[in-house]
Amino acid sequence: MKGPLGRREFFADAGGLALCTLAGVEVLSNERADVEGLAQGIEVPPKVLAAQERGQNPATTQTVFAATTRAAREYWIRAEPIKRWDMVPTGRDEMMGKKVKGKTTFPAYGYRPYSAGFAEPLGPASIPGPLIEGTVGDTIIVHFQNKLGTPVTIHPHGVLYSADMDGAYKGKFTDPGGFIQKNETFDYVWEAVEGTQGFWIYHDHGPMDPLPLYKGLFGPLLIRDPGQPRPTKEFFCGFHSFLPVATGINAAFQCINGRAYAGNTPTFRSNVGDDVAFYVYAIDDDFHTFHVHGHRWKAEGSGAVIDNVTLGPGDSLTARFIEDNPGRWFYHCHVFSHLHLGMNGWYLVE
Amino acid sequence: MKGPLGRREFFADAGGLALCTLAGVEVLSNERADVEGLAQGIEVPPKVLAAQERGQNPATTQTVFAATTRAAREYWIRAEPIKRWDMVPTGRDEMMGKKVKGKTTFPAYGYRPYSAGFAEPLGPASIPGPLIEGTVGDTIIVHFQNKLGTPVTIHPHGVLYSADMDGAYKGKFTDPGGFIQKNETFDYVWEAVEGTQGFWIYHDHGPMDPLPLYKGLFGPLLIRDPGQPRPTKEFFCGFHSFLPVATGINAAFQCINGRAYAGNTPTFRSNVGDDVAFYVYAIDDDFHTFHVHGHRWKAEGSGAVIDNVTLGPGDSLTARFIEDNPGRWFYHCHVFSHLHLGMNGWYLVE
Amino acid sequence: MKGPLGRREFFADAGGLALCTLAGVEVLSNERADVEGLAQGIEVPPKVLAAQERGQNPATTQTVFAATTRAAREYWIRAEPIKRWDMVPTGRDEMMGKKVKGKTTFPAYGYRPYSAGFAEPLGPASIPGPLIEGTVGDTIIVHFQNKLGTPVTIHPHGVLYSADMDGAYKGKFTDPGGFIQKNETFDYVWEAVEGTQGFWIYHDHGPMDPLPLYKGLFGPLLIRDPGQPRPTKEFFCGFHSFLPVATGINAAFQCINGRAYAGNTPTFRSNVGDDVAFYVYAIDDDFHTFHVHGHRWKAEGSGAVIDNVTLGPGDSLTARFIEDNPGRWFYHCHVFSHLHLGMNGWYLVE
Repeated sequence: MKGPLGRREFFADAGGLALCTLAGVEVLSNERADVEGLAQGIEVPPKVLAAQERGQNPATTQTVFAATTRAAREYWIRAEPIKRWDMVPTGRDEMMGKKVKGKTTFPAYGYRPYSAGFAEPLGPASIPGPLIEGTVGDTIIVHFQNKLGTPVTIHPHGVLYSADMDGAYKGKFTDPGGFIQKNETFDYVWEAVEGTQGFWIYHDHGPMDPLPLYKGLFGPLLIRDPGQPRPTKEFFCGFHSFLPVATGINAAFQCINGRAYAGNTPTFRSNVGDDVAFYVYAIDDDFHTFHVHGHRWKAEGSGAVIDNVTLGPGDSLTARFIEDNPGRWFYHCHVFSHLHLGMNGWYLVE
Repeated sequence: MKGPLGRREFFADAGGLALCTLAGVEVLSNERADVEGLAQGIEVPPKVLAAQERGQNPATTQTVFAATTRAAREYWIRAEPIKRWDMVPTGRDEMMGKKVKGKTTFPAYGYRPYSAGFAEPLGPASIPGPLIEGTVGDTIIVHFQNKLGTPVTIHPHGVLYSADMDGAYKGKFTDPGGFIQKNETFDYVWEAVEGTQGFWIYHDHGPMDPLPLYKGLFGPLLIRDPGQPRPTKEFFCGFHSFLPVATGINAAFQCINGRAYAGNTPTFRSNVGDDVAFYVYAIDDDFHTFHVHGHRWKAEGSGAVIDNVTLGPGDSLTARFIEDNPGRWFYHCHVFSHLHLGMNGWYLVE
Repeated sequence: MKGPLGRREFFADAGGLALCTLAGVEVLSNERADVEGLAQGIEVPPKVLAAQERGQNPATTQTVFAATTRAAREYWIRAEPIKRWDMVPTGRDEMMGKKVKGKTTFPAYGYRPYSAGFAEPLGPASIPGPLIEGTVGDTIIVHFQNKLGTPVTIHPHGVLYSADMDGAYKGKFTDPGGFIQKNETFDYVWEAVEGTQGFWIYHDHGPMDPLPLYKGLFGPLLIRDPGQPRPTKEFFCGFHSFLPVATGINAAFQCINGRAYAGNTPTFRSNVGDDVAFYVYAIDDDFHTFHVHGHRWKAEGSGAVIDNVTLGPGDSLTARFIEDNPGRWFYHCHVFSHLHLGMNGWYLVE
């Protein structure tokens, strides 16, 4: 608006240059971090080395506690590069009725679902990754294979698991499940015991954390309560941002499920009478709020009636209501600068 | 404190210059945005044009659902310029016992209440706008007239309304209620059905969002539960900021109800024995907390006892307690930089 | 990672220079504020002067309401300088298995517990200060002595007290308890009446607020419910940051209980079967979340099952669960930049 200065030039001129500490190293926040280059310097943790030297698949050594009597839900998931992820495939912001200028694609990472034994992909690598779900009583087994040039993992929230199954890099204390190298496979075993029902998330928590997550390695995890009716419509909303450190694009995109701006973010659809569940989570460096126009719901547990709720990184919640209001509605983050950098979408009710 | 460098000079020197995306355009965050100039470029959305071409008052075409048997609460509200809004009328910060230096006035926007038919103003245009209230069962009709040089709206939280009544600009999908041009009038019809009781907010959500809101277009909305006793004292606390993009002043003011610093922000008064309700909301780009000295209350719904609570933009809540503690108390945001830029006030109990 | 530019040099080069308003004055956010120098300019408030002129110990003039029939819990606490507080005593970040480079010590402030009559210290001055605890029905008396070169106070959350006991500087309205000068003593009397049970905090709220707090003057306050079983393990987690304005070090440290990085932050230990309570609070300018790997708990009041929760400055909460999961776990703030600047620790279960 002020002369010829575009967003990109501006950041460069004003020295958009800023250091931030991520993955234990200092990176420039206005340039894409070279995750795979940085990963070269990482030492293989001792327990991982020991397992490799024994020629052992660490997955076969694990103790699956109390799993014998439970039904297993099995997933085969690969972490893969996504050559060209488009944050704004339509090129437009339907909320403002405008074109979105500048570059909107970058090389990302995604979790990709496969059929049993990694026989064939069930779809493309996506951001977020596929829904992992189970019912109370289930053992969930995620056969995880890494095709990226950096060690990554899957760390779940909410469910029960032994410490070697938490998918977290822990320096010299790291278990094999916390450091899955390129072309390696690890079987995560998690238990959906009583008390774990609810909506959760999963995400990379490996040695380059949070850079691989910032590039797309996160997803939804849902544990169903068999004693509760299932919603008739289920919508998953991951609030996150794609920042220069992940994209190499000198601008921030405030995203829902990997996309920015209404018409690119998911357009959710339901009918009057539906038992609707929005499963919402935040997974970046920011705090957000979840707001739906024309609707309200009872907060989980407390029952307080709300139409806007604050979420921090790692928080996940369910907004559930019986649909009673037809029309074209927005759902969005009410942080205004996030809303206007793309964190909004359509909710269409017939 | 460090030589002669004042806040204003500092920002300029250090290139306080920063672009932000608001209203779908990039504006400099350290200068007042020319809202009315920017609004010149906005196309009139097709449904609005069509209604105008039919010479139709869009308000008369609306379907008021199920309103026939309900009592109507009617409001006449105008959006008006406020030539000179003073954020610090006393010029002093009573918390620190100091003068507040520098300019504290700017041309703002306000919602102004009128008597029936806009016959006469019921008071000045104010920040926040007038309380809109109803009781469960009421239909609320807000006759809204725009006297600003930019299209604006009223978007309510919490209550029930059809999509054409939500006062939100939606690009090419915009209904007439989402684009009220200068000198136009629109009648918003909202329903306070069972389940909408509680404390909410309303605010501009037009095509220049959030700039008109940042200049003052927001206010409280209260739906009473006829089955619940009414508090004996009711205090409304809007936590928000006035930033350079709204004021043209090169400093941030962290405000409560349009004012900054104790003695300028509302001084609330009650007596021991009062059934006190603080109705609190946040409506800017920041997260805040609401804290009252010497008091605590049960969180809505959950009943957890708290004396400090986090709020994000768009959140609204009620802190209710029986007053038992006389004295001069602070209520404030516990984010220290907000507290020290004005987000505090007096609560006096006798 | 990008050439020879270190964090410290970078901030200086890029003009890390920024003004912020704290304690009613503008300070540079990238240099240590001269708190004691700034404090020279503060006028002694009239009520404090009057008490001094009468040669009166203000503590003896107070009205202890309804305290006669209650048991008194007495504490003797001094605010003292800490010549050299080390935020990273091991010099290492055990999460990333790396050295923490650069300076990590600075002159801090701490609350220090003493035996009756300040006879002898019960330990060193610490960050946070000692636990202040009581049971419902108790009167808590804190004999507070200031050994710092700036007036400071103790302001409690949650408990009941008369306005002259709230330890808050209030400009010209300041009571003696809101302005304790060097070498002065003040007796704070607070009531743990029914309804105040829970986990709270205390902190400086004197005329230099928040600078003394930013240097370490805060701590935990716990009011026990005699009708509830006591946890078998209790862990206190203060989430806060040490910023350049407090440390003079040109880098931010995201701390838990005064330390940064796993192995320096508290390593908590419990056994399977323990009734575990994490008492968590946030007390800086940021919002945080509290997350524990491999565990979940019912939110206070609401009962919603969570494993991650958002906290703003001044918020305090209890995460309580029966320990059922042995192993080496992380507890951490899920804001990624905080996690990677030190806000993480070990939780070891046997």
